[in-house]
Amino acid sequence: MSRPVIVALDLDNEKKLNELLPKLGKPENVFIKIGMELFFNEGPKIVKQLSEQGYQIFLDLKMNDIPNTVYNGAKALARLGITYTTVHALGGSQMIKAAKDGLIAGTPIDKNVPKLLAVTELTSISDEILHYEQNCNLSMNDQVLSLATTAKKAGADGVICSPLEVKDLRQKVGEDFLYVTPGIRPAGNAKDDQSRVATPLQAKEWGSTAIVVGRPITLATDPEAAYEAIKKEFN
Amino acid sequence: MSRPVIVALDLDNEKKLNELLPKLGKPENVFIKIGMELFFNEGPKIVKQLSEQGYQIFLDLKMNDIPNTVYNGAKALARLGITYTTVHALGGSQMIKAAKDGLIAGTPIDKNVPKLLAVTELTSISDEILHYEQNCNLSMNDQVLSLATTAKKAGADGVICSPLEVKDLRQKVGEDFLYVTPGIRPAGNAKDDQSRVATPLQAKEWGSTAIVVGRPITLATDPEAAYEAIKKEFN
Repeated sequence: MSRPVIVALDLDNEKKLNELLPKLGKPENVFIKIGMELFFNEGPKIVKQLSEQGYQIFLDLKMNDIPNTVYNGAKALARLGITYTTVHALGGSQMIKAAKDGLIAGTPIDKNVPKLLAVTELTSISDEILHYEQNCNLSMNDQVLSLATTAKKAGADGVICSPLEVKDLRQKVGEDFLYVTPGIRPAGNAKDDQSRVATPLQAKEWGSTAIVVGRPITLATDPEAAYEAIKKEFN
Repeated sequence: MSRPVIVALDLDNEKKLNELLPKLGKPENVFIKIGMELFFNEGPKIVKQLSEQGYQIFLDLKMNDIPNTVYNGAKALARLGITYTTVHALGGSQMIKAAKDGLIAGTPIDKNVPKLLAVTELTSISDEILHYEQNCNLSMNDQVLSLATTAKKAGADGVICSPLEVKDLRQKVGEDFLYVTPGIRPAGNAKDDQSRVATPLQAKEWGSTAIVVGRPITLATDPEAAYEAIKKEFN
């Protein structure tokens, strides 16, 4: 089975979505990530429609609330036919477990339970924010390792992390876990607001199980060609 | 102006919502909190409808993502005519500022910009989770104070915190700030999954600027009477 390349759709309405999607290829060949922006504008119905059209969907809402609320939030998301969704590991093990239980409870009988990915530290969190605003007493690497370990013990299926962290995590948290890495830029692309980036080839060599790529595909003159090239480089 | 009592609507669909709302009183007298569960099931359209009917709305989605995503998420929420919304202070000052900027950018000309409330530590985060899973090197009180200070400096309008933390925060962070406190139980009610609770009267005495109350109102035999009684006790 090929390693997924997930296209981050950072756009805010259905019209732009319908303009872009046909340019990415046939639905069954396309794995998309929907975040807050599109979901907060259009809501769950668009996710359900896209899933029914054959798209694989990573619904990336990064839940972080009390366990009971996250259980019910996850239950709602599981009804939409998604493949991946996310919680913050900083929400603690009880909340992570509640999210997984909610996904199981909400999944229709004929569907697979969505995979729960825990966000360790956002790629926009610098060492300074980690130590002086989160008041964390560990180095970035140790904090990411600690959060990934907590997430795995609590029942998450994998983590979102920087591509630079995957090698270390695979050794210490285990191979039987998903390592989904945003912050991927083909050689020569701008870094935008993400501080820790890698090329698809590097991500493959370091062991990412899936990569998330946004503007290098969505803003390409030929998005499908750019998408296929990155799939090839990553597999 | 009376201090708001916000009814937490922890239900998952429009049908249950339409059964409960008439029992709370006239829309212009009712301030409701919508969280992940209802929003993930029904999406933004229901929020817009309720706002147009005259309800005041706290849309509590606790955003926590990279600044650019939160800016666009907040911009989407501001179009719905809400009064309060939330971000996690753990996301850092850049993300908090991006949320406020997004709210301003998304607010229709004839509407007020929604107030941005920062979540410090969830009421379900125990000392153990704080120190051994978040790896925070401060006590709970010091961490909440630190996060509240970061949030205020970054442009948030207030914080969500436990009622037990308000007195200390008012002195150290300032009076010109909103202190919105969930975990409110009239004397004699069950504590459910929240570990730090207070009565409406205590919350008033300790300086909460608004309180959030769920099951003691929504599960009362006469929700409107229970709501009015708590409004009275808190004002």
